[in-house]
Amino acid sequence: MTASLQELLELELPVIQAPMAGVQDSALAIAVSNAGGLGSLPCAMLSLEALREQLAAIRAACDKPYNVNFFCHTPPTPDAQREAAWRAELSPYYTEYDIDASTIPSGARRDPFSAAALDLIREFKPPVVSFHFGLPASDLLDGVKATGAKVISSATTVAEARWLESQGVDAIIAQGLEAGGHRGMFLSTDITGQVSTLALLPQIIKAVNLPVIAAGGIADANGVSAVLALGAVAAQVGTAYLLCDEAATSPVHRAALKDAGAVHTALTNRFSGRPARSIVNRVMRELGPLGQVPPFPLAATAIGPLRSAAEAGNLGDFSPLWSGQNPSGCREIPAAQLTRELGQKY
Amino acid sequence: MTASLQELLELELPVIQAPMAGVQDSALAIAVSNAGGLGSLPCAMLSLEALREQLAAIRAACDKPYNVNFFCHTPPTPDAQREAAWRAELSPYYTEYDIDASTIPSGARRDPFSAAALDLIREFKPPVVSFHFGLPASDLLDGVKATGAKVISSATTVAEARWLESQGVDAIIAQGLEAGGHRGMFLSTDITGQVSTLALLPQIIKAVNLPVIAAGGIADANGVSAVLALGAVAAQVGTAYLLCDEAATSPVHRAALKDAGAVHTALTNRFSGRPARSIVNRVMRELGPLGQVPPFPLAATAIGPLRSAAEAGNLGDFSPLWSGQNPSGCREIPAAQLTRELGQKY
Repeated sequence: MTASLQELLELELPVIQAPMAGVQDSALAIAVSNAGGLGSLPCAMLSLEALREQLAAIRAACDKPYNVNFFCHTPPTPDAQREAAWRAELSPYYTEYDIDASTIPSGARRDPFSAAALDLIREFKPPVVSFHFGLPASDLLDGVKATGAKVISSATTVAEARWLESQGVDAIIAQGLEAGGHRGMFLSTDITGQVSTLALLPQIIKAVNLPVIAAGGIADANGVSAVLALGAVAAQVGTAYLLCDEAATSPVHRAALKDAGAVHTALTNRFSGRPARSIVNRVMRELGPLGQVPPFPLAATAIGPLRSAAEAGNLGDFSPLWSGQNPSGCREIPAAQLTRELGQKY
Repeated sequence: MTASLQELLELELPVIQAPMAGVQDSALAIAVSNAGGLGSLPCAMLSLEALREQLAAIRAACDKPYNVNFFCHTPPTPDAQREAAWRAELSPYYTEYDIDASTIPSGARRDPFSAAALDLIREFKPPVVSFHFGLPASDLLDGVKATGAKVISSATTVAEARWLESQGVDAIIAQGLEAGGHRGMFLSTDITGQVSTLALLPQIIKAVNLPVIAAGGIADANGVSAVLALGAVAAQVGTAYLLCDEAATSPVHRAALKDAGAVHTALTNRFSGRPARSIVNRVMRELGPLGQVPPFPLAATAIGPLRSAAEAGNLGDFSPLWSGQNPSGCREIPAAQLTRELGQKY
């Protein structure tokens, strides 16, 4: 038998706020955890100094369970040919925005979990640590477990769920195809194997003996009830939090989420090198959502100056407008209110 | 307030067997209706003579409610350039199978609802008539309604649901992206607007004042419970019936559904000209699932001889292997048993 959610995470409500790198910090996590859900701090885009500050902020404001999330990709080998091809594809836009591509610095904006980050986990001892793109190397994973943290990771296929179980995670997030942001896929790059929450969740529940959390397409209390009916122990909700007062969602991103066009999303690798769900914008439409871009996260480099230039003119044409397929839960309300409403039928 | 399912269709169980042209006839519909669900007869690929025979078979074997389903696309204008391009794309396969492409007859295999079909509806008076790809012309629609039949159609977007409501349908099927076979989309050809059941269903329920049926990704009793929790009045299930004793699913199709590769599906227009979900097979993999093919249903013509030739060797390389994203409910059992199990928590 799988553990109940209470046994696992000591939560009042079966609601987990999805970690969303780039659009939130500890403020959102604190609000959700204090409201009885599980708030999450995304760390992939934080320096170690910023990570320390954010962890300290949570400790100061919250004595409820919370989650700290890391990416755990293998740092890529730069690929000069792909980088050049990607810049060539973007060159008409560089011309349009009068950007000298030769001045764009190289370098990634997303770091994988590291020994230095583990030191901070040892220091702050967060109750839950979650990973995206699989799990870190076993010495790092063992280090996290040794702190007493519950370890969670996302599976996008039954095979990934079985693999995570074999590695000793405490719970699995079944990430349906609807979910906004990066697909957690790590055993395969074949997106034809990526299926919806309704299709994926029951298959993962059958395949593993662990609590399974549902993610993707859940926007309201009925959505939470639906995934609990399918056997999930909790719902992980991301998109619905993006307009909350405590989210750091950019103005162009907020505008896109409020626009009727938000129903048009696609998996795209244009912003980072890995498939992630974004509202369809100009660059996705004109170049196609998927292309031969540099490996994750290096694709972000070449498109970065275009994003900045366009955003300066209030255009999200080159910005990752992460959103799931169900933006209907997005409201400009406090995150605590949203959390309680999501969990109200529990 | 929306009507209850009982008021609408007088069903014992909130389970509708999805009409699946090409893989079933009245035998499946009869088994499902007699078990307390709503069995469906797909008519798009039936001649008028065959349609009469099938309707007579249902009347002889079943006094419960049943559904008769028609496509209602506008017959296409043949496009010589697209036809030639499609045949050129297939030419290496013609060579491989020693097929003389000049001998392939033209002609469609799927007919839209017609005045002649309406005459049979008037004669047999089925309790429910459903349409795919929108609705037929208003004179035909009015003719159907005048028989007393409840009229149902599929919506794949909120806009389509609103349009169907404006045309006076009795209920709407929210067809999530997971569903196998043809997308019912009719107001747009943009597949980026196609979302999962979990995302679509709540948005359609909010948008219309009609009973809403959920379709896509539902494979077992928990799945039925989940969509009822989201506010659906019933679940329409297709894929799970494909291995049932009463289905006419072909041997290559059955084999594909039982194979581990069944989890890999994609929307493809290679088999008919319209996007439809199929298990990924050789032609989808090698040419890509979506291409510039002749308009629906004419794409079927050129690929037809390849399908026949490959199937003769027990290969589904050129066959439409319709399946939803959740094949986990497929079992070789009587359809009555599956129907009762799907509805067992009701």
